[in-house]
Amino acid sequence: MTEPKTNRQWRLMQRPKGALSMADFAWGEGPVPAAGPGEVLVRHDLLSIDAANRAWMSPVPTYLPPVELEGVMRGFGIGTVLESNDPGLKPGDRVEGLLGWQDLAAVPGRELRRLSGEIGADEQLNLLGITGKTAWFGLFEIGRPRPGETVVISAAAGAVGSVVGQLARVAGARVVGIAGSDEKCRWLTGELGFDAAVNHRDPAMRKALQAACPKGIDIYFDNVGGEILETVLFQLRSGGRIVCCGSVSTYDTGTPPPGPRGIPGLLVVKRLRLEGFIVTDYESRYGEAEKALAALAAAGRVRAADDMRAGLEHAPQALIDLLAGQNRGKVMVRIAGA
Amino acid sequence: MTEPKTNRQWRLMQRPKGALSMADFAWGEGPVPAAGPGEVLVRHDLLSIDAANRAWMSPVPTYLPPVELEGVMRGFGIGTVLESNDPGLKPGDRVEGLLGWQDLAAVPGRELRRLSGEIGADEQLNLLGITGKTAWFGLFEIGRPRPGETVVISAAAGAVGSVVGQLARVAGARVVGIAGSDEKCRWLTGELGFDAAVNHRDPAMRKALQAACPKGIDIYFDNVGGEILETVLFQLRSGGRIVCCGSVSTYDTGTPPPGPRGIPGLLVVKRLRLEGFIVTDYESRYGEAEKALAALAAAGRVRAADDMRAGLEHAPQALIDLLAGQNRGKVMVRIAGA
Repeated sequence: MTEPKTNRQWRLMQRPKGALSMADFAWGEGPVPAAGPGEVLVRHDLLSIDAANRAWMSPVPTYLPPVELEGVMRGFGIGTVLESNDPGLKPGDRVEGLLGWQDLAAVPGRELRRLSGEIGADEQLNLLGITGKTAWFGLFEIGRPRPGETVVISAAAGAVGSVVGQLARVAGARVVGIAGSDEKCRWLTGELGFDAAVNHRDPAMRKALQAACPKGIDIYFDNVGGEILETVLFQLRSGGRIVCCGSVSTYDTGTPPPGPRGIPGLLVVKRLRLEGFIVTDYESRYGEAEKALAALAAAGRVRAADDMRAGLEHAPQALIDLLAGQNRGKVMVRIAGA
Repeated sequence: MTEPKTNRQWRLMQRPKGALSMADFAWGEGPVPAAGPGEVLVRHDLLSIDAANRAWMSPVPTYLPPVELEGVMRGFGIGTVLESNDPGLKPGDRVEGLLGWQDLAAVPGRELRRLSGEIGADEQLNLLGITGKTAWFGLFEIGRPRPGETVVISAAAGAVGSVVGQLARVAGARVVGIAGSDEKCRWLTGELGFDAAVNHRDPAMRKALQAACPKGIDIYFDNVGGEILETVLFQLRSGGRIVCCGSVSTYDTGTPPPGPRGIPGLLVVKRLRLEGFIVTDYESRYGEAEKALAALAAAGRVRAADDMRAGLEHAPQALIDLLAGQNRGKVMVRIAGA
């Protein structure tokens, strides 16, 4: 375990106007932090790149306050404990938490979660991490699929969407993905076992979705919001459920659109439920999801795709790519370690 | 029990363009119907006037197909059996069902529900009928209030809203009504025990609502949709619920507005649930609601307000008044009987 002597950092220099760009960030070196009382010094090994990162940059608070201007960019990641003033953690432990876009972080021990060292960090960040757990709790706690139902997923070739689709198949549902290219659609049906996939850049997307869902849609796992949400809403069957996981179509713009037509009228006449969630709401139940996801992975029934980028210096571009749909599976940035 | 020799009827002659008007209807006499096989001839005693009636006139199907042009206007009501070809019903029985805006209806017996003759028809249509049951199941099955939570109700001086507010008080919630006049607001707080009421025609309505809900809003029982829904949405607390009961602000217009801003983004970050329902979904459980509502009424803890109109000839104006907010409590039209 090498202790870095420098602490490279990405800072947020301005709130993005419209689409995120490199100009919103500054690259530099910060002080090597020390672990204060109750704190732990962590070497950041693997950074998670998530659509939510963009929402956190907005001046409007989300479930977290906005990232501070000129502050280190917030990010979730996995690291290795170098020094600890928390009795529950010791040097060499692997931990996850909000480590930020930097090499080193001093974080209160209570804000970190200790991980087993037996599983690779990439699997712990992806299928067995917040990504897999977001898919698990969103689908099974909010969506609640029954065998034979039709489940539609947007951003289906993304980190969460690609896992949701495979889980819904395991649960006996017909699974239809929405993605942004024909190549992604072929990947969903050819490699991940989706029953059908629809390219949302197809001008006839509405009809293509109808053809892919001849009995209508029972569950929509929504990662994008906006026009796609409206299109799906009008194809839901009575008793349909919309799992509101994210709204990426509205994050990377200065002018968020109005909400979808049909709300609330359609919700009444079709008895629909739209429900939002954040994976951390289920923290006390993470163990059950990890156990189930590990068993499904071991049985070859679910697999997660890694879109791995090498080097902290590539973090902003990784997020820009994700927001533009230039990724397949989970975008991660390898900073250090194995 | 007098058997009418004529069958006066209101027919829908055109789909309303914008606000409903008398010109959309025609008044006349239809044939006195006969009960066919399995059918029951019913004398219509008391007609329920509901915002949903307006939605049924739209060319877009709701949970029922649109009312047919030149057909008798659809309406829910209570009547008395005159002749029966259904073994479960006999002359003199009181029944409820879709009897239409007419004196006499021949209806399949299986589409009628037999009522006790011991309770007044007005109470059976209002607190113990679809109105009270809509309030009951919407509030307790969808909203699920906990003591100390804040419940906001729109169209609070209407039939359903005025009952919801009283039920939420019984359940230990702080109750705030939204209504369309200061006089209605005074009635809600002075007579029905609401903790506060806000006039939605007040230009400072948003701030008035904030002042009335200093801890934020946990449950919004929405009868109106539109701008008021959007205003409330932004004042919901994390974990908030929106009971989608109706969308009257969008029924009586030719140009329904787009959906509220903040959907789905706010649903995610605040973990909100929007859920629609129709009271008939709970038909198998009507008994439990009737029993509970009757007990609360007997204990003086909940009372329903009747806005009674005399004579079938006044049915269209009664609905026009309801859509314009010119009512207090349940609008009913007395056609015949006690």
